[in-house]
Amino acid sequence: MAQLLPSALVDAIEELGRLPGVGARTAERYANFLLKADVRTSEKLAAAINNLHTGVKSCPVTFALIDAEEDVSSLYSDSDRNKQLVAVVEEPLDIIALERTGQYNGTYHVLGGAISPIDGVGPEQLHIPELLKRLKDDAVEEVIIATNASVEGESTALFLQRHIIDEGIELKMTRLARGIPVGVDLEYADQITLSHALEGRRAL
Amino acid sequence: MAQLLPSALVDAIEELGRLPGVGARTAERYANFLLKADVRTSEKLAAAINNLHTGVKSCPVTFALIDAEEDVSSLYSDSDRNKQLVAVVEEPLDIIALERTGQYNGTYHVLGGAISPIDGVGPEQLHIPELLKRLKDDAVEEVIIATNASVEGESTALFLQRHIIDEGIELKMTRLARGIPVGVDLEYADQITLSHALEGRRAL
Repeated sequence: MAQLLPSALVDAIEELGRLPGVGARTAERYANFLLKADVRTSEKLAAAINNLHTGVKSCPVTFALIDAEEDVSSLYSDSDRNKQLVAVVEEPLDIIALERTGQYNGTYHVLGGAISPIDGVGPEQLHIPELLKRLKDDAVEEVIIATNASVEGESTALFLQRHIIDEGIELKMTRLARGIPVGVDLEYADQITLSHALEGRRAL
Repeated sequence: MAQLLPSALVDAIEELGRLPGVGARTAERYANFLLKADVRTSEKLAAAINNLHTGVKSCPVTFALIDAEEDVSSLYSDSDRNKQLVAVVEEPLDIIALERTGQYNGTYHVLGGAISPIDGVGPEQLHIPELLKRLKDDAVEEVIIATNASVEGESTALFLQRHIIDEGIELKMTRLARGIPVGVDLEYADQITLSHALEGRRAL
């Protein structure tokens, strides 16, 4: 391969291939696209990637991603945000999904993952102590455990629930509703989702 | 969005989203991966992308991709390459596929695409005049038209075939064999492939 392709191209394919889910063929496709495109496309992409680590940091309170020059996430510091309501999510980008609903005026807490022994992620790697501190300091009234609907997300939710009770913190704990997604026909819903939908049925 | 995510992250997602087949979600995933990974990963990726255009150029004879400091593709200039045999391919990376077979000692000619009126690609955008010049200059004996098995690839092959005849260039013209790929059961082969396989059947 090294003699067949220019080394600059081999390098680009190798580095692009480190992106998640990108195999050799996809990396070749990306590199080929960049080579054929205007040089400005590559320059802008390289600059954006270079600025990523310097321009972004974690909010020290919520662990949301914030501009490097900000102190605290505006989703925490804004006065119209209800600090007594905290949604606990796994990853920073989960915040975007909840914000897009336009229905939520509470604050967020990013755990930084979910408990997953198989990946070597234990509770000690997650931002749980900081959450407990916030729950006390801000006299939080409700915590919405909005971890993913995966095995890891569910385990993490259970762990958090027990941990909060063990710490003697008294507040309302909730979990996002499970049910049939909008636009999905009943016949296509999987049975676990359908069981949740039955269990959580609402009076009309 | 701009207020929800740090601008450096928004930039990176936007630029990554320009890669072919990468939507907003995939771009978010890539950016998130880079943020979580060591800063060296981003630096190396950015450097590789930056070096792509400066480190790579087109061979003036074969239009294969070569190192910026090379004059001509080594797949053309090497003395053990048969210059009287030319495989015509659509894209530079097609060369790799043929080289991997280890069965080919001829040279290559990259057209730079295929004729596709719908994408606005006509014969005049392809490296066809340079091919005709080579066929004459190198007294080529056989040209293997190795364009893709797509509608565009087939049209391009037909166009080339007629063009070479019209130019009065006398040589053997061949096309890669069509048939059932290795490892594919007869029952799963599509009928066009199977027709080709029947048509091109070989005596035992």
